[in-house]
Amino acid sequence: MAGPVPSTDLVADVLAGRTRGIARLITRAEAGGAECRPALAEIYRHTGRAHVVGMTGVPGSGKSTLVRALAQALRANGRTVAVVAIDPSSPFSGGAILGDRIRMNDIAADPGIFIRSMATRGALGGLARATLDAVDLLDAAGFDLVIIETVGVGQDEVDVVQAAHTTAVISAPGLGDDIQAIKAGILEIADIHVVSKCDRADANKTVTDLKQMLMLGLPASLDGQWPAPVIATSAETGEGVGELVTEIDRHRAYLDESGRIGDQRRRIAERRTLKIAEEIIRSRFVARRAGAVAGMLERVCARDLDPHSAALQLLHTLHEDRDDDQNA
Amino acid sequence: MAGPVPSTDLVADVLAGRTRGIARLITRAEAGGAECRPALAEIYRHTGRAHVVGMTGVPGSGKSTLVRALAQALRANGRTVAVVAIDPSSPFSGGAILGDRIRMNDIAADPGIFIRSMATRGALGGLARATLDAVDLLDAAGFDLVIIETVGVGQDEVDVVQAAHTTAVISAPGLGDDIQAIKAGILEIADIHVVSKCDRADANKTVTDLKQMLMLGLPASLDGQWPAPVIATSAETGEGVGELVTEIDRHRAYLDESGRIGDQRRRIAERRTLKIAEEIIRSRFVARRAGAVAGMLERVCARDLDPHSAALQLLHTLHEDRDDDQNA
Repeated sequence: MAGPVPSTDLVADVLAGRTRGIARLITRAEAGGAECRPALAEIYRHTGRAHVVGMTGVPGSGKSTLVRALAQALRANGRTVAVVAIDPSSPFSGGAILGDRIRMNDIAADPGIFIRSMATRGALGGLARATLDAVDLLDAAGFDLVIIETVGVGQDEVDVVQAAHTTAVISAPGLGDDIQAIKAGILEIADIHVVSKCDRADANKTVTDLKQMLMLGLPASLDGQWPAPVIATSAETGEGVGELVTEIDRHRAYLDESGRIGDQRRRIAERRTLKIAEEIIRSRFVARRAGAVAGMLERVCARDLDPHSAALQLLHTLHEDRDDDQNA
Repeated sequence: MAGPVPSTDLVADVLAGRTRGIARLITRAEAGGAECRPALAEIYRHTGRAHVVGMTGVPGSGKSTLVRALAQALRANGRTVAVVAIDPSSPFSGGAILGDRIRMNDIAADPGIFIRSMATRGALGGLARATLDAVDLLDAAGFDLVIIETVGVGQDEVDVVQAAHTTAVISAPGLGDDIQAIKAGILEIADIHVVSKCDRADANKTVTDLKQMLMLGLPASLDGQWPAPVIATSAETGEGVGELVTEIDRHRAYLDESGRIGDQRRRIAERRTLKIAEEIIRSRFVARRAGAVAGMLERVCARDLDPHSAALQLLHTLHEDRDDDQNA
């Protein structure tokens, strides 16, 4: 007779910081159903306290290892930490491939640390939305810091990291040219530059190159008032991890004292709302694709209607007939 | 007195295959203005003849070198070829970093080859839309094959490659674990698997590993009827490039003979129309963000309104007040 616990009944669990309630609501947020939406709306009212830190870097940069070291250092410092990691797994199967979950396991026994991998959700999207729902839940649950760990490639990943208050971009010595080129594209979102694997002999060159680029004003920082520091770290020896904690705190203090945190919150709200609006459009589209929309798409296939005109018609059709928003 | 040539006046140039008209209209499509839209709608009526090939692989897979070798082999075969390459450059500055343009230059003197790099266009998006506009222009201009070259990471890139009739995924020997994991995520979109750098000693293992994975049914192919071949190539020695041409042609013949090409065209039209609809929403949003939308976002910042409810209100507001669609 009893169905699953209604999501709204889990809100109190989350606000009390109970792991099981948090994990269940994240899973429901990931599934994207309508049932959990009132709960997430209520949770949202209790957010805004946690400091959200984005940690991003190209594949091979030692990101996961560094996030683990950072989480441990923050715990040693008396803070509670949650990590939301985005798996660079298949956009089709949604299956997790990377071993982040496993690699993080050895610190998962501590109740002051919460770790969660998000799987990508395919062409329908929703990864960024679900990830930020998870950040809300962890914020409302009282974690002092919430770390979003993501590979620094692709618009979705950049969107997610843009929802952090402080973003650290991780560079590593000894990566190939192509990798370095991609990395260059994300350097400008860095509030803090981290060079990993500084136990390696060639790491000094990476630090020097990065400092020189910054001295030349390349890339220009998105926040001209804050000179992004460069920190040499080694997850092996622990070098620089304490300094990373210090710089994260210093950046947060800067945001608060300068008033920049207000601009940042507005920008985050804007991006997030727009992203959800897009997801709603996709969802309405999927619900209608067999009906009103099918004939229009046939005309596009027949070269009888161009895709831009079709898109304008589509938006009109979806708006006129939006009774399925409970599934959006 | 005379302004710039209206885009509609360039349509005849494109249909006659004149490079200058093609290049100018691609630039206008990239800028995303409304002026070129009637021209692109007209161009669209003349598309559907070219075979569109997606070439994708992780950074370091030797993608650009292989695309160059493939383009040369196709030319030697009497076919005309256009390449649209997506730069994995900054989503913020839009600046090109990779040297694809330069690397391709040595074959750019041949009028039967057209090469174009697309820059990513930032948070407003539009990369996928502009890339497919460019493919339309090259298709209508009469190129036999249009190759879309893209790094195989991120939803935007996957969306673009899904607009190809034949997708080749490039693997390379000797990449790190993290890189291989990302690659695993795109293997299932492959109609053809290509292993590059087969002049290297460790390439055999990559070929064997891939064949074993496929024998185990991992990853499952998206098209169960077509067993994706594995081709060992070396752009250095030319090994396997001829075989790649043969397999691309064989896949196209399969699509035509099986009737799968019809399903594929419908799926491409669907994804493309939806993507443009999303871009229109973003564009309307940008035009309204200082006005009606600002107050609503303030309420989101104040935790007085949750982002999902805000997104629903936003869609309603943008629909009611959409007189700026000429800029969409």
